[in-house]
Amino acid sequence: MSESRKIRVAINGYGNLGRAVELAVHESPDMELVTIFTRRDPASLGTKFAPAASIEDAPKYVGQVDVCVNCGGSATDLVNQGTQFAALFNTVDSYDNHSNIPVYFDSIDEAAKAADHVSVISSGWDPGLFSLTRLMAEAVLPNGFTTTFWGPGVSQGHSQAVRRIEGVADAVQYTLPVEAAKESVRAGQNPELSTRDKHTRLVYVVAKEGADEDAIREAIVTMPAYFADYDTTVEFISAEQMASDHSGMPHGGEVIRAGETSPGTHQAISYSLTLESNPEFTGSMIAATARAAVRLYKSGKRGAATVFDIPPAYYSPKTPEQLRKELL
Amino acid sequence: MSESRKIRVAINGYGNLGRAVELAVHESPDMELVTIFTRRDPASLGTKFAPAASIEDAPKYVGQVDVCVNCGGSATDLVNQGTQFAALFNTVDSYDNHSNIPVYFDSIDEAAKAADHVSVISSGWDPGLFSLTRLMAEAVLPNGFTTTFWGPGVSQGHSQAVRRIEGVADAVQYTLPVEAAKESVRAGQNPELSTRDKHTRLVYVVAKEGADEDAIREAIVTMPAYFADYDTTVEFISAEQMASDHSGMPHGGEVIRAGETSPGTHQAISYSLTLESNPEFTGSMIAATARAAVRLYKSGKRGAATVFDIPPAYYSPKTPEQLRKELL
Repeated sequence: MSESRKIRVAINGYGNLGRAVELAVHESPDMELVTIFTRRDPASLGTKFAPAASIEDAPKYVGQVDVCVNCGGSATDLVNQGTQFAALFNTVDSYDNHSNIPVYFDSIDEAAKAADHVSVISSGWDPGLFSLTRLMAEAVLPNGFTTTFWGPGVSQGHSQAVRRIEGVADAVQYTLPVEAAKESVRAGQNPELSTRDKHTRLVYVVAKEGADEDAIREAIVTMPAYFADYDTTVEFISAEQMASDHSGMPHGGEVIRAGETSPGTHQAISYSLTLESNPEFTGSMIAATARAAVRLYKSGKRGAATVFDIPPAYYSPKTPEQLRKELL
Repeated sequence: MSESRKIRVAINGYGNLGRAVELAVHESPDMELVTIFTRRDPASLGTKFAPAASIEDAPKYVGQVDVCVNCGGSATDLVNQGTQFAALFNTVDSYDNHSNIPVYFDSIDEAAKAADHVSVISSGWDPGLFSLTRLMAEAVLPNGFTTTFWGPGVSQGHSQAVRRIEGVADAVQYTLPVEAAKESVRAGQNPELSTRDKHTRLVYVVAKEGADEDAIREAIVTMPAYFADYDTTVEFISAEQMASDHSGMPHGGEVIRAGETSPGTHQAISYSLTLESNPEFTGSMIAATARAAVRLYKSGKRGAATVFDIPPAYYSPKTPEQLRKELL
């Protein structure tokens, strides 16, 4: 497991996640950052720890990069870039469109195998660490129920949906788990929880001058898919309050599995995250996954893979001996 | 990952853990129990789901068993039987003498490699699931601190230590985590926690008739290694109370890692178990590890291994496609 030289990492995309991966790789003594690919003008990017390069020039880096971290969004970027980059490099991404994962996996698997690469898809915390928890918890407690709660935290998708409403200048949406629902799940009561039972939504809105606040509120709470199935609270605040109190990107959540190992013998597993910065934590997990991907490649694995396929030791810079001595 | 036939499991040892593994394997549709080895008279064992056999006859089962689960204790059984059984079968055990794990690993590694087997040591929840959590949490938050709390739960070793004191008819010892210490660790305050800060001990004692309760109490609270470094409460109860209120073996604990991904940005990970039966939960994890060990063997791995070396998908009876679709 000890690498003779540092793992050479490229980043593709320089939004919140790309910057977080840049930071995490920079903080990892066993990794070095080669370049950051962008669709923008590289000279304008303002990267911190590596030179930027045009995404068009990515093929020129073949042979200089052990793994490329694709930091684009699932909806458009990864669907298009995933296979292209799997043809050039070993890759890691955070593809999180859960319902489309099987289709995405197959497309990446084909591209990576054809190019003799390994591509780890869907890392981060959900999918990622939460997925690992769900798998292990179900394997250990086959007779039980797993429930995932999200938040308290900011949902970018819901915030953007509110920002598109007429009269809204700015908005941020917090997803809040219902504590009573968590308790009942932990207690193994396995209640039939509806969407509304598990989470509530809290929206802070900065209205444009003269906007109809009642109309905005109504447009939010009735919005299908995003809000209609939840109890949603809307609060109007000033632009100053928005800037001072809601500029962070906290998130988190909890995976709970409760089950029985014999009739009447209750067992419960809980895994929870409390994150002050969702992008930084996700970036940190993805940087560790980049390390793991290179080891997976060295072990002979080719094609698409997920966190389910990776021996946990691969994520750590420590040797197997250190891990057994210090952490087992 | 789909097996054409069931995984054939043997169990070595029929104490609390052996019985729990028997139950867990019986509940797994993809596994079948071949036999249970014992040092006792097999006819006297009273096994539930498989015939018992003398441990002396274990070599006769070579070729009929895909994996043998060694359910003896770490102190004497596993140290002696581990290498012998690694020579006969793929094996899994719950070796939990943390400080001796490197030495034990090496001895098993040599025996298993010589016999072309794989032997997974130290599975269960600590070591085991807690170890996995420590590893992943440290890999994702390299700049941070991990703390493990145990309990509330019964410690067999501490209970037995009390039972050896003169005048004690029976005793049970509960290890209790200090909630305030947990809170400070979760909050990332990284306090310098002493042994006394993290856990307290609560002992229920049934005294023999005429025994000196003050002397018993003093003998307990001053006992080196076991109690002297803790705040210990001793309560005397009747044999009836002992039987009615303290016959279970609950346990649990929590692994917490708190760290920063950038200066001032706190992130926290918590993994907790609440177990009504420690042996049944441990047995369930070990049964899943037996499934994983057979897959590890099929993948070409030989020698000793730990949970750090096992791709998580191997623990589950589901196919990789199912896992990605349902749990990622």
